[in-house]
Amino acid sequence: MAKKEKLKIIPLGGLDEIGKNLTVIEYADEMIVIDCGMGFPDDDMLGIDIVIPDTSYLVKNQEKLRGIVLTHGHEDHIGALPYVLRNVKSTVYGTKLTLGLVELKLKEHGILSENTLKCVKAGSIIKLGRHFKVEFIRTNHSIADSVALAIKTPVGTVVHTGDFKIDPTPIGGEMIDLGRFGELGKRGVLLLMSDSTNAERRGFTMSERTVGEKFDEIFKNNHQKRIIVATFSSNIHRIQQVINAAVKTKRRVAVSGRSMLNVLEVSKELGYIHMPEGTLIELDEIGRYRPGQLVIITTGSQGEPMSALTRMAFSDHKKVELGKDDLVILSSNPIPGNEKPVSRLINELLRKDVNVIYESLAEVHVSGHACSEELKIILGLTKPKFFMPVHGEHRHLVCHEKIAETMGISKKNIFINETGSVLELDSKSASVTGQVQSGNVLVDGYGVGDVGNIVLRDRKHLGEDGIIIVFFGITRNGGTILSGPDVVSRGFVYVKESDDLMEQVKACAADAINNAINKNGADHNTIKNNVRNRLSDFLYEKTKRKPMILPVIMEL
Amino acid sequence: MAKKEKLKIIPLGGLDEIGKNLTVIEYADEMIVIDCGMGFPDDDMLGIDIVIPDTSYLVKNQEKLRGIVLTHGHEDHIGALPYVLRNVKSTVYGTKLTLGLVELKLKEHGILSENTLKCVKAGSIIKLGRHFKVEFIRTNHSIADSVALAIKTPVGTVVHTGDFKIDPTPIGGEMIDLGRFGELGKRGVLLLMSDSTNAERRGFTMSERTVGEKFDEIFKNNHQKRIIVATFSSNIHRIQQVINAAVKTKRRVAVSGRSMLNVLEVSKELGYIHMPEGTLIELDEIGRYRPGQLVIITTGSQGEPMSALTRMAFSDHKKVELGKDDLVILSSNPIPGNEKPVSRLINELLRKDVNVIYESLAEVHVSGHACSEELKIILGLTKPKFFMPVHGEHRHLVCHEKIAETMGISKKNIFINETGSVLELDSKSASVTGQVQSGNVLVDGYGVGDVGNIVLRDRKHLGEDGIIIVFFGITRNGGTILSGPDVVSRGFVYVKESDDLMEQVKACAADAINNAINKNGADHNTIKNNVRNRLSDFLYEKTKRKPMILPVIMEL
Repeated sequence: MAKKEKLKIIPLGGLDEIGKNLTVIEYADEMIVIDCGMGFPDDDMLGIDIVIPDTSYLVKNQEKLRGIVLTHGHEDHIGALPYVLRNVKSTVYGTKLTLGLVELKLKEHGILSENTLKCVKAGSIIKLGRHFKVEFIRTNHSIADSVALAIKTPVGTVVHTGDFKIDPTPIGGEMIDLGRFGELGKRGVLLLMSDSTNAERRGFTMSERTVGEKFDEIFKNNHQKRIIVATFSSNIHRIQQVINAAVKTKRRVAVSGRSMLNVLEVSKELGYIHMPEGTLIELDEIGRYRPGQLVIITTGSQGEPMSALTRMAFSDHKKVELGKDDLVILSSNPIPGNEKPVSRLINELLRKDVNVIYESLAEVHVSGHACSEELKIILGLTKPKFFMPVHGEHRHLVCHEKIAETMGISKKNIFINETGSVLELDSKSASVTGQVQSGNVLVDGYGVGDVGNIVLRDRKHLGEDGIIIVFFGITRNGGTILSGPDVVSRGFVYVKESDDLMEQVKACAADAINNAINKNGADHNTIKNNVRNRLSDFLYEKTKRKPMILPVIMEL
Repeated sequence: MAKKEKLKIIPLGGLDEIGKNLTVIEYADEMIVIDCGMGFPDDDMLGIDIVIPDTSYLVKNQEKLRGIVLTHGHEDHIGALPYVLRNVKSTVYGTKLTLGLVELKLKEHGILSENTLKCVKAGSIIKLGRHFKVEFIRTNHSIADSVALAIKTPVGTVVHTGDFKIDPTPIGGEMIDLGRFGELGKRGVLLLMSDSTNAERRGFTMSERTVGEKFDEIFKNNHQKRIIVATFSSNIHRIQQVINAAVKTKRRVAVSGRSMLNVLEVSKELGYIHMPEGTLIELDEIGRYRPGQLVIITTGSQGEPMSALTRMAFSDHKKVELGKDDLVILSSNPIPGNEKPVSRLINELLRKDVNVIYESLAEVHVSGHACSEELKIILGLTKPKFFMPVHGEHRHLVCHEKIAETMGISKKNIFINETGSVLELDSKSASVTGQVQSGNVLVDGYGVGDVGNIVLRDRKHLGEDGIIIVFFGITRNGGTILSGPDVVSRGFVYVKESDDLMEQVKACAADAINNAINKNGADHNTIKNNVRNRLSDFLYEKTKRKPMILPVIMEL
C-alpha cells in the first residue's frame, strides 16, 4: 500500500494570498510545515493590522503534523507562528538566530512553552516522523542564519530555497553552500521550490559588502555630521556594517525604535553582532557628544507613520531633534506600496535642512533576493525533475517559470500553483489533484478572523462617503411620527456649512416615512428601505455623493 | 514710481501642495498666470475625486489678470481650468492641441464661452497687458505641442520650461528649440523656472522613437496574436507609434476607453494623428478579424479600477475578452502610488494566460521629463541670474538645486519656494517677501472645498474602525430612560458572531446613562460624553479597537 502513496505539496500561503509563506509537505499519515509567515494588509483591507494564512487544514490534520521547519527569521516567514501555535501543537525547528527572534515573539504573545523550539545548525539533518529527513543548507539573505531545506521523502528529494541570494563576500557567515546544491542535483532532485522575488531583475544582486564600503566613504566624508541610519531591524548584517563604519570613524552608536532595540539585544546575546566595549550608548546620552561623534541606528526606513524616524522627521520624537548637522541614510528600498510614505519622509527631512542619502542617489542598499542569473545557477546545480516557483507575486512566478524553461525544464514539469492547491508527486509524475481550504485571515486588534467581507465593504463605504443617520420615533402599533426625524452625519460634509442641506434631508426623510406608513402601516423594514432609497437619490442628485444612510427607528 | 516696482513670482500650486501647477507672475497692477492644473488625492484624502489649488488670490486680484498661459495639455497643467474659470474671468492662451483638449474639458463642464481660448503658435510672441511679452518656445514632452515660455517683464526675462525633455528624434514635430534658449541666455535671463521631475535620474531620457522601434519588433514577432496597448490617452506620439506599427504589420486598430476616444478624436481633427484610411475600426467590429489582424489601444495603464484594461483583465468588459491569443503591452510606468494596482493588473492578466510586456521586461516606455544632463544643458544655455526649480516633490527640487550649483549658480541665488510664497525680483536682487493664501481645495462630487479636515478625519476613523451608534429615549425634563439603549454597528465586526458583545455594550451604555443622569440630570452633553468614554474604554479593552461611538438621544 505504501507504494501507492504520493507526496503532497500544499502551499497554504505565499502565492496569491496575502497571508504569507506557509507550505505543507505531506506523505501518507505524516506531514511537516515549512515556514509560518504573516503579510501586511492591502489598501482595501481597512483597519486591518496583519494578515495570516488560513490554517484550518493544519488544525484538521493535527495528528499528522511532525514539525514546523523555519528557513529564516523574517516576519513573512515566522510572523504567523503566535497565532497558528494557539490552534496547532508542534515543535518548531530553526537555526539559532531564527529561533531567537521567534522566542521574542512568542514571549510577547505569552504562549511560549518549554520544548516548543529546537535549534538546528546549518549543515545538519533532522528526522521528522518516519518519512521525512530534513537537511538545513546554509544560504545568504538579508538576515543572518538563513537556510534552504532539502527534504528527503519516500518518493524523492524536495529542495526548498527559502529566501536567498548568492553572496560570495557576505558579512558574518560564509557563502551559500552551492556545493551541497550541486551534490543534491547529482543524486537527483525531484522537486525544486525556489524564491522568485527578484526574477524580473536581470544579472546578479550585489554583495552586502558593497553597502559597507559605501558607508565607510559616507562616514569619512561627513565627519562633522551626526549620522542617522534607518534600515530593517532584522537586517543584522547591515547593522553590523553601520557599527563597523562607526568604530572606524570613532563614533558612538545609539539605537532608536522598539523592534531595533529588541533585535539588537537578541543578536548581541547570540553572538551575531560584534563591537568593541563602549561603542553602544543610551539614546539619553547623545547630548554629551558632538554630532561628528555619533551614529543613531533607527527603524522607519519604510516611512511607517509611528516609527522612530518618521517621528524625528515630523518633530515628534522625544529624544532626537533633526537639523542641518544631521545626515540621514535610508538603507533600504521602499517595499511596493510604500513609495509615497517614503517620499513624504524624504521631503520632510529635506525641509529640515537634513542631508538625506537614499537609494536613487547612492548605493546604500542591496536586495536580499537572487536575480535571474543566480536563479539559473540554482536551477543548473539542482537539475530538478519538477519545478515550482515560490515567493513572489504571480508575475514573478511566471517570470521564474520562463527562466526555468531557458534552463531546459519543460513547461509541463513546471507548476505555478495557487494557494491551497494540492500538487501530488511520485518519483516519475506530478499533477495538481485538488484544493484544500485556504485564504487570508485578517487580524484586527484582538480579533482574528472576525472582520470579513461585509465589514470591509462597510468600512470602505464609510471611509469614502461617510454616514448619515436618520432617527425618529413612531407609535408602536399605529402610523404616526412621534419624534424627529432628526439627522446626524459624520464624514459627509462639515455640517455648519450645510445646515440648509440637512433641513432638506429631514423633510425628505419625513416624507418618505409618512409615505411608507400610509402604504404599509408601521412595518419597520418598509419604512427603512423607503428612507434609504429616497435619501440616497436625493443626495446623489444634490451632491453626486453616496453616503451610507442608516435609518434608526424607536418605537414608543 | 515704476522704477521701484518689483516683479513677483507666486507659485499657487505644484510645489508642496497636491493641487498642481499654477504660477502667478505679477508686476505693478498687472499679472498673468502660467498653467492651471489639478492633482490626484493622497491616500489619506478619502473619497476625494481631485485636488485643485486654492485660487482665492486670483479672485481677489481679478482686475489685474491679463491672461492664463498654458504650456501643454496634461491634466496637471490644465485640469483645474473648469473650476477656476467659474470664479475668475480670463482669456486662455495655448497651442492648438492644448486648447483642443481644454475645449473638450470646458464643454463637458458646460462653461465654454466664445473668446475664452486664443491659439498661439510655438515661436510667436504675444503681448499681455502693458508689462508682459510672452514668447512660446517649442519643447519636447510626452504630449504634442508643448512649449516653454519666455516672459519679458520690465525687470528682466523669466524663462519657464513647462514639462520638457530634449528629444533629438521626436515623433511629429521638431526637436526642442535649444537655439532659442541659447539666444535668450546671451541676452540675459533674470530667472529660470525649470522642470525637476526627473532630477534624480542621471544621464539622458531616451528618445520617444526608441519605443516605436520596440513596438515594430514586438508586432512583427507576434504576428499570430492580438495586441492590446495601454498608455496615457494624452500621449499622442505613443499612440501614433502604435498606429505606425499596426499599419506596417497590416493590422486594424480599435480603441477602448472614453478618454482615449475623446483625445483621438481631437488629435485627428487637429492633424496630430495620421493614418491611412480604413485603419481605424469600431470596437464592435473586432469579431470580424483574426487576432493577428488586430490592435486595441486602451486606457488603464495605471491599473485604475474602472478603466477599460482593468475591466478586460477582470472579465468585466462588454466587448473585449482576453485569453491566450492576446499580448498586452503596458506602455507606461506606474506613477508613484500606483505600483500595487498595476501589479495586481499584471498578475490578473497573466492568470488569464495573456502574454504581458511591461517596462521591467522590455523598453516599451520612455519618460517625458528631462534627466540630469538635459537639465544641465538648459541651465548652461540660459545662464540665469536666479533659479527656481519647479514641478516635482521637494526631494526633486533639492536635487535640481544641487545640479544648478554644479553649473555655477550660487546657492543664495536659488529659491526653493513653498506654495503661496512670494518671490520679489528686480534686475539685481531677489528675495522671498511674503506669503499669500494658498493650499489644496478638495473636490468631491459636485462639492468644491466643502470637505475639510474634520470630515477627512472622520472618514479615516470610520474607514479604519467603523461606527457604533447607541440610541435611546429619555424623558424631557427628568432623568429616566424611556426606550433603549439600543445599538447598531457598521464596519466594526460582523454582528451575528458578536451578539454577546453587543449585549454587553448595551448594558455598559445603560449604566453610563444612568450614572450621568444621577450626577447631572438630563444634560445631553454630559450623558453623551459619559457613554462615549465608557464604551470606548470597554471596547478597547475587549477588542483592542477604537470604533467611532455616536450616542443618539431622543427626548420624549
